Amino acid sequence: MRRGHTTANTIWGNEASVLVGDFLYSRAFEMMVEVGSMRVMEILANTTNTIAKGEVMQLMNCHDPETTEERYIEVIRNKTAKLFQAASRLSAVISNQSGRIESAMATYGMHLGTAFQLIDDALDYDRNNHNLGKNIGDDLAEGKPTLPLIYTLRQGNSRQRELIRAAIEEGGLAQIEEVMDAIESTGSITYTARRAEDEAALATAALVAIPDSPYKQALLDLAHFSVHRDY
Amino acid sequence: MRRGHTTANTIWGNEASVLVGDFLYSRAFEMMVEVGSMRVMEILANTTNTIAKGEVMQLMNCHDPETTEERYIEVIRNKTAKLFQAASRLSAVISNQSGRIESAMATYGMHLGTAFQLIDDALDYDRNNHNLGKNIGDDLAEGKPTLPLIYTLRQGNSRQRELIRAAIEEGGLAQIEEVMDAIESTGSITYTARRAEDEAALATAALVAIPDSPYKQALLDLAHFSVHRDY
Repeated sequence: MRRGHTTANTIWGNEASVLVGDFLYSRAFEMMVEVGSMRVMEILANTTNTIAKGEVMQLMNCHDPETTEERYIEVIRNKTAKLFQAASRLSAVISNQSGRIESAMATYGMHLGTAFQLIDDALDYDRNNHNLGKNIGDDLAEGKPTLPLIYTLRQGNSRQRELIRAAIEEGGLAQIEEVMDAIESTGSITYTARRAEDEAALATAALVAIPDSPYKQALLDLAHFSVHRDY
Repeated sequence: MRRGHTTANTIWGNEASVLVGDFLYSRAFEMMVEVGSMRVMEILANTTNTIAKGEVMQLMNCHDPETTEERYIEVIRNKTAKLFQAASRLSAVISNQSGRIESAMATYGMHLGTAFQLIDDALDYDRNNHNLGKNIGDDLAEGKPTLPLIYTLRQGNSRQRELIRAAIEEGGLAQIEEVMDAIESTGSITYTARRAEDEAALATAALVAIPDSPYKQALLDLAHFSVHRDY
């Protein structure tokens, strides 16, 4: 399942999904070329390369209970946040804004993407999360050490630490209830949400450089929404 | 196995191999941007998109004994030959040659790539093929209807046709010996090699537009080699 839908992989298998993914990716590059801007190409080529690196880093963290909060944040910056950053930076580039505006928009996107991903990782352990279309514990099933687990490993008692360590190493959902209890009792969701709010505040602060407009207001609303969504 | 080496997929698994593939692909795009030529970007974006389409077409032909010689050739043109064409066309583009030279180089690459792939598909059924580092019958194992099979389906007796049809539909190597006997007795390898020679001749003919030089001679040698290799 992905966002409430059966994945292409489930329906058509691995090979077809990977090949059609390659097709869409290269088609996107063709469309970028049509824009005719070398600067746009440069940003997007660098972005996709960084995202691919982030995906590899994330895979290396999988099943590793030694993954630190710092390494976890580095994956988010390289993966999700880099894509948000490119999208917001490019809005300045294609409308010929100054370097100062471009830089502000890039900073906004980087923090917005980080906030979004932190909340996404918190929602993976939200018992009330029916709207997201994700399965609860998707990250746990893959042995992915996201912040709710990392913080529980740091703050939990020795029994909880042992539980989380084993859950990351082994993956799977056999102990999902116990893991969610440990996450709740250590306040790990609250901690993750607070870090997301810090990021949303930094995103908002970056927009000081941008003149007021309904579009700026939409960006401010988006930063607020990213940390107050429950889906 | 791929070219005599254990594949990355076998060593590191599917996920890591796909992700590192994405990394290399996007890194290649970054390097293309460094060249600073929009025309180069356009050719390579179009090439990769066409190759991805060719890969999808090839997958659709798999296990389909109704695949015609025409559909088979269309996959080769879109996949292997398109890459060869881009490589040879770009040599003209980055050295600022005329449209006539660029077009000649593109034609050369298209036919060279087709010749190369036809021989590659013939070698997959070559009992003496120890140098290639491929496993005999790799294509058969995947149920891939390449020209040696397509021609045998057309020219074989009813028993042979039934054998080949089942082999394509089911894949696997259970009847590899019988399949290779049928391919040999219908002259399907000779037919495939003759089509490759026609393509090599067209590649050579395209070079008439290019002034003589040691480099042109190397291209002529390459066209000759592509159909006279046994590895």
